[in-house]
Amino acid sequence: MKRTSEHTIKDIAEALGLSPSTVSRALQDYPHTSQATKARVREVVEKMGYRHNAVAASLRNNKSRTIGLIIPRISMYFHAEVVTVIQNKLHESGYHLMICQSNDQPDLEKELVNALYSARVDGLIVATTSTTTDFTYFDIFRKNHIPLVFYDRVPKDYPSHKISGDEYQGGLEATLHLLEHGCRRIAHIGGPLTSNIYRDRYMGYLAAHERYKVAPDPDLLFFHELTKDNALKTGKALLARKHPPDAIFACNDTTAIALLGYAREIGLDVPGDLKLVGYSNDPRTEIITPSITTVEQFPRQIGEKAAQLILDLIGDKQKPVKGYINLSHPIELIRRNSS
Amino acid sequence: MKRTSEHTIKDIAEALGLSPSTVSRALQDYPHTSQATKARVREVVEKMGYRHNAVAASLRNNKSRTIGLIIPRISMYFHAEVVTVIQNKLHESGYHLMICQSNDQPDLEKELVNALYSARVDGLIVATTSTTTDFTYFDIFRKNHIPLVFYDRVPKDYPSHKISGDEYQGGLEATLHLLEHGCRRIAHIGGPLTSNIYRDRYMGYLAAHERYKVAPDPDLLFFHELTKDNALKTGKALLARKHPPDAIFACNDTTAIALLGYAREIGLDVPGDLKLVGYSNDPRTEIITPSITTVEQFPRQIGEKAAQLILDLIGDKQKPVKGYINLSHPIELIRRNSS
Repeated sequence: MKRTSEHTIKDIAEALGLSPSTVSRALQDYPHTSQATKARVREVVEKMGYRHNAVAASLRNNKSRTIGLIIPRISMYFHAEVVTVIQNKLHESGYHLMICQSNDQPDLEKELVNALYSARVDGLIVATTSTTTDFTYFDIFRKNHIPLVFYDRVPKDYPSHKISGDEYQGGLEATLHLLEHGCRRIAHIGGPLTSNIYRDRYMGYLAAHERYKVAPDPDLLFFHELTKDNALKTGKALLARKHPPDAIFACNDTTAIALLGYAREIGLDVPGDLKLVGYSNDPRTEIITPSITTVEQFPRQIGEKAAQLILDLIGDKQKPVKGYINLSHPIELIRRNSS
Repeated sequence: MKRTSEHTIKDIAEALGLSPSTVSRALQDYPHTSQATKARVREVVEKMGYRHNAVAASLRNNKSRTIGLIIPRISMYFHAEVVTVIQNKLHESGYHLMICQSNDQPDLEKELVNALYSARVDGLIVATTSTTTDFTYFDIFRKNHIPLVFYDRVPKDYPSHKISGDEYQGGLEATLHLLEHGCRRIAHIGGPLTSNIYRDRYMGYLAAHERYKVAPDPDLLFFHELTKDNALKTGKALLARKHPPDAIFACNDTTAIALLGYAREIGLDVPGDLKLVGYSNDPRTEIITPSITTVEQFPRQIGEKAAQLILDLIGDKQKPVKGYINLSHPIELIRRNSS
């Protein structure tokens, strides 16, 4: 059988005895093409399986009406929330969203940037991997004036539009809260310091200690991918020590939830023996007993801003963009029973 | 500035004084093209912003090496798990995954089918909306022999490959479990009966009652979108009745979790006053107090099978596919403290 992809407007025109330009106009629903012609073209298109050529269409319209999105993992609560809002907002404006997961791997992220570029998206929204340090593979978007917006995990020095939470303030308030409650040996379990979000939360942790004139014990600092398995490994080692911490500030809720489960398992009272603060306000932190103190990042507002910005940039492409937008969204400490 | 999309291989060839076919070979990394030529072409490509034409490339290779996926919502635990496995498996075989959310709306689902077709995906994996009844917009894939696999929410009568859980067995075991524990007024909160999964779970619920010679009270049957808000609305009305149910079989865990929270709020003891069973084994059901009895659907195994099937179909496109594969994966009732 002839491959679908090999049928062109010319084949359809020949089959119908029409000119290719008439077929093209019919396919694009031009007002001056008769309904009868449009119906005939549609019928043959369906029979022959002509694949509406996205490239040809977008050459004419300059739009694929599709936005690409790359996130580390869709299973992360924060990103799932952001994506939902972005999609709904784009949908209202007649845009589709194609979502790709980098699995937090820079190599895969690079491939996806190129795949979405080839798929001719009209714009790209990205939360980078936590270990991306070379952002030059995003140049293909930037240099070609295709709107590019980073959110949450944003490249510090790469010239681009960025929307993130106030991670420094999050780390500061979480740690101050534990210091206020008398904790002096606060373990910090963070993600890779190559990532702005983990770097800033850690800076906040340090600043809080400075305010209280407490020197944080370097043996209580951990930086690794924040998975459940890693949390248990670190938690077990940490709580088996002769001088265990009196509190843990975990830089995501998955880590905090795993630690709470383990603490209960070994008979520790939370918050009596160990206070615990997480990060993201994942709904699980509210339903677990005791409920976990955490930092609300307002993913819906961040998603709203990212979607609005990419729509503004697409609409405004004629004018050169003057400078880059860099937004920081406030956070809020949610006090619960784990601290 | 000249639009990126208007640059062709010809422009690049002219700029370099090479033939278009040499440029094309360099772009495709042909072994007989010199490294020096490839480097020159790459440099100009980057400068001019030539967008590697996905259509031209796939006409030649017959592959975009991209698979499309349409699911109701990525925030649903079951689908997030399936997607993770599918992506990892496809990645091992050199395929990218582009994920689109239908928001459980047939109109949007239809648009996405066409958008992914135009994006020239090599295959499509779909869990339909719960209210899709007209599946003809998938014909464009089927008729053109582009592999199409449905999972979980599959069209009963539409000719296609299907992988789903044994939903009937899930409904049966969940309800039998409650009947065994003495419940005789078991409310059923299900999703729209247009969806195979909710229809089959309901059939299982009825079959269990038949085995026990118990006539289910029609006033205890509810079918609506299974959101938290709907759960609270139905739960409030149901538990305020003179003759409330002694158990609820909720067809997803979001509903079961919302009902448990509400039952606690009004002072009901679960499982003493009310027994509760959910569906999906969402991790939240394990960490909540009391933990919730639920049905494990094995999303990872279903994702594994869906990915393997689409890869087999892509590899095997030369041969006409004889008949359609229709797999049903076993479920497992996870007994916990809510029942």
